[in-house]
Amino acid sequence: MSFARLDALNRKLEALSHAQAMLGVDEAVMMPEGGGEKRAEAMATLAAMTHEMAAAPEVGDWIAVAEAEDLTPEQRVALAEHRRSYVNLTCLSPAFVKRQVEARLRSEQVWRKLRPAGDWKAFLPALTNVIALAREEAELRAAALTLDPYDALIEQFDPGSRAASMTPVFDELKSFLKDFIPQAEAAQKKTRKAYAAPFAIERQKAIGQAMMKAVGFDFEHGRLDVSHHPFCGGVPTDVRMTTRYETSDFLSALMGVLHETGHGLYEQGLPKAWSHWSVGAARGMTVHESQSLFVEKQIGRNPAFWDWAFPQVRKTFPDALKGWRTSDVMPHVHRVKCGLIRVDADEVTYPMHVILRFELEQEIIGGRMQATDIPEAWDAKMREYLGLSTIDNPKDGPMQDVHWPAGAFGYFPSYTLGALLAAQQWAAIRKFHPKIDDDLRKGDFTKVNTWRRKNIWEKASTLTTPALIIAATGDSLSAKPFITHLRNRYAA
Amino acid sequence: MSFARLDALNRKLEALSHAQAMLGVDEAVMMPEGGGEKRAEAMATLAAMTHEMAAAPEVGDWIAVAEAEDLTPEQRVALAEHRRSYVNLTCLSPAFVKRQVEARLRSEQVWRKLRPAGDWKAFLPALTNVIALAREEAELRAAALTLDPYDALIEQFDPGSRAASMTPVFDELKSFLKDFIPQAEAAQKKTRKAYAAPFAIERQKAIGQAMMKAVGFDFEHGRLDVSHHPFCGGVPTDVRMTTRYETSDFLSALMGVLHETGHGLYEQGLPKAWSHWSVGAARGMTVHESQSLFVEKQIGRNPAFWDWAFPQVRKTFPDALKGWRTSDVMPHVHRVKCGLIRVDADEVTYPMHVILRFELEQEIIGGRMQATDIPEAWDAKMREYLGLSTIDNPKDGPMQDVHWPAGAFGYFPSYTLGALLAAQQWAAIRKFHPKIDDDLRKGDFTKVNTWRRKNIWEKASTLTTPALIIAATGDSLSAKPFITHLRNRYAA
Repeated sequence: MSFARLDALNRKLEALSHAQAMLGVDEAVMMPEGGGEKRAEAMATLAAMTHEMAAAPEVGDWIAVAEAEDLTPEQRVALAEHRRSYVNLTCLSPAFVKRQVEARLRSEQVWRKLRPAGDWKAFLPALTNVIALAREEAELRAAALTLDPYDALIEQFDPGSRAASMTPVFDELKSFLKDFIPQAEAAQKKTRKAYAAPFAIERQKAIGQAMMKAVGFDFEHGRLDVSHHPFCGGVPTDVRMTTRYETSDFLSALMGVLHETGHGLYEQGLPKAWSHWSVGAARGMTVHESQSLFVEKQIGRNPAFWDWAFPQVRKTFPDALKGWRTSDVMPHVHRVKCGLIRVDADEVTYPMHVILRFELEQEIIGGRMQATDIPEAWDAKMREYLGLSTIDNPKDGPMQDVHWPAGAFGYFPSYTLGALLAAQQWAAIRKFHPKIDDDLRKGDFTKVNTWRRKNIWEKASTLTTPALIIAATGDSLSAKPFITHLRNRYAA
Repeated sequence: MSFARLDALNRKLEALSHAQAMLGVDEAVMMPEGGGEKRAEAMATLAAMTHEMAAAPEVGDWIAVAEAEDLTPEQRVALAEHRRSYVNLTCLSPAFVKRQVEARLRSEQVWRKLRPAGDWKAFLPALTNVIALAREEAELRAAALTLDPYDALIEQFDPGSRAASMTPVFDELKSFLKDFIPQAEAAQKKTRKAYAAPFAIERQKAIGQAMMKAVGFDFEHGRLDVSHHPFCGGVPTDVRMTTRYETSDFLSALMGVLHETGHGLYEQGLPKAWSHWSVGAARGMTVHESQSLFVEKQIGRNPAFWDWAFPQVRKTFPDALKGWRTSDVMPHVHRVKCGLIRVDADEVTYPMHVILRFELEQEIIGGRMQATDIPEAWDAKMREYLGLSTIDNPKDGPMQDVHWPAGAFGYFPSYTLGALLAAQQWAAIRKFHPKIDDDLRKGDFTKVNTWRRKNIWEKASTLTTPALIIAATGDSLSAKPFITHLRNRYAA
């Protein structure tokens, strides 16, 4: 039976991917520097073996034959998703992939070297090359998937999502934020109580783990470690989260931990029986980010949550937070400030960073904007959306992110779509459970987790992103719940 | 070119083995318990993929064709060692291996359950089955390798070593130890100064790492962690050692760390260019154990070493070792005591545990002794060699080790052959550097490491075990240097 052949193949691929996931975690958390060269070699070899096995021509035959076999409905859904992955995996020629991988690696290396000085001019040739290849990739994928070129790139990160549906959503959000950002900035407290640091790392770790556990993280199937760049990795049965601590502030690590916990809960909640099929994996970047932002923003920055959490935080740091009340910490939790750097942005200003990139990416992939035009276009939008100029500062303008240097076009929208989807889920949950804030005040996350388990986690990749959103929330993705959320939290 | 084909295959196998080694380390050091089931599945799948690739019939063809190709002398040695591994890997049928793996797993599980109560009778059927399969394996391997059956098993652990050459060496050692053990026991101090524990774990770790570094461990390519069963794992470019701490005593962890460091130095010293060929791997269990015992026993329990090390140890534990002198710690370092348990034995009594097993194994594999006969035979030898009886205590008799329950016959001799080889290496080094003890007194390990790098580490698997020993020390393996070593250290 061809379905059984695919099942056996997928078990092998799962083992290889298990190994690669764990080697990645080990590299970031444990590996001494001298181990890096051989590790990179092993990872590249395993990746090539994985690709060779997954993209083999006979796999296409097996899929075709299996489609005519007598399958259960579940198997049929799994097979359809497998075909989707297979087409996406095989629509680029190995020669093209090789050319692209090399160009991306080189460009990323050049970017790392030039970013500190913001040397845009020296970076330009590498970026130009990466853009040319991204356009070529988009055309190749578009032909194979019968999609618009930019949509064909988005499809890698968010199956089923299309720029044409995102645009009105982003436009609505943008026009709201243009007025709302200055209002929110003006509405917040002018001064914030200063911390009497230090916040000992061991204590930060302890309170982080306590919060992880409280919001539902299963430490029998995961753990929290330290790495330079925080991430959530590993496999669903063994989720490895990391954070990074600073002794001058407890909030940034704690919010980071809650963010990664959102990713972790999604992974831990995926259906076990299908873990070796792509249908059993998480559904793309928007949904993943919606889970992390749900825990970080909808729960973790909710005043009701802090009514419950702050007494524990204060108990953890009795000296540094002596005399502090919940009302003292909330201005830190809800700080709004226009800035140049996307990753440092708060939830009010963050979407503007993404919308800027979304708009430029469409021009770039569509061939209407060249690499040389980017700094000026970036600056114009930055001034319009956030009132800041980057024209003399490419380091904190178009050179700030690794995505474009690494050739990842079509990825940025997910961040804000995830924020919108998180708000939309929270609104859907509140419709069912109007007093859900009271649960947060008691540190009871049962209802939110039950809802997400059933509507998001267990669904895995059985539906496209838009279909999943409708099935879960009863509506297609909209900016409205997020706008309402911002109004409630940040208006005067 | 077939040699190039083998080279490419070996790079893939190296990546798989890199992954398996690191997953093994992660499992012992980091993995939460709930990750175990999926990890076991991934490991089994990767092991099966590795075996399938390494043992494929076409690999045999490539070897044969490559042997006729125009190769450098180095390539020729690599190819010969590859043929040896390939023959050893393929001389059992997949059906037999499957039967044996299942029987071993079952027997090991039964053993784990029954060992605490020492229920030999209930364990007997599983062991009988494993023994029958070990005899069958020995016959199959013997036919493929043209060796005696027991030698064919030893060949898995120590290529080139034969029971007929070991027997006179072990006999000489045994007859020496029969008289010497009571003398050494009598000669030692009757009372030992008691520790004023606790020894803080962080400090034990710090002194352990300092000693590792001093004796040559490269922390750019390795690290020290904690696990329940100490081991040395990872890959040569990234050696992962573990230990286990008790706060009541610093010596056991420190000696354990030095032991594993010996393994680690060997791995770190292997030739990089051949890391993906079997010729570039460590040469079997005896040589590996000789390296760990060299660092632990020849260096780490040497009074000259303690002249240098003890002041640092005392500085690390100023309270627990207040007023202690080097002469106070040496009776702890050189304690001799007959006991039932091999893994707890000191270097004087340890060989008797191994000789007992070596003698029984030959009877068992030769079919002259049945599983039912083991407790009586064990007891008789135990009484003769160490003056202790196990007849009413199978838990601490033939049920104490995992080796036989797991079907590993032919492995035990390596432990003592390693101890003899370590002493023989030390003697060879002293011939070159008569004042080498003065180096230890200064904490200078350059000369011992230079000698071992050139004569052991860089040789990897280019020679059989006996040939390596002759090339390194100028003599075949002998009990004499070890006997001299024990006399010098433990005689009155």
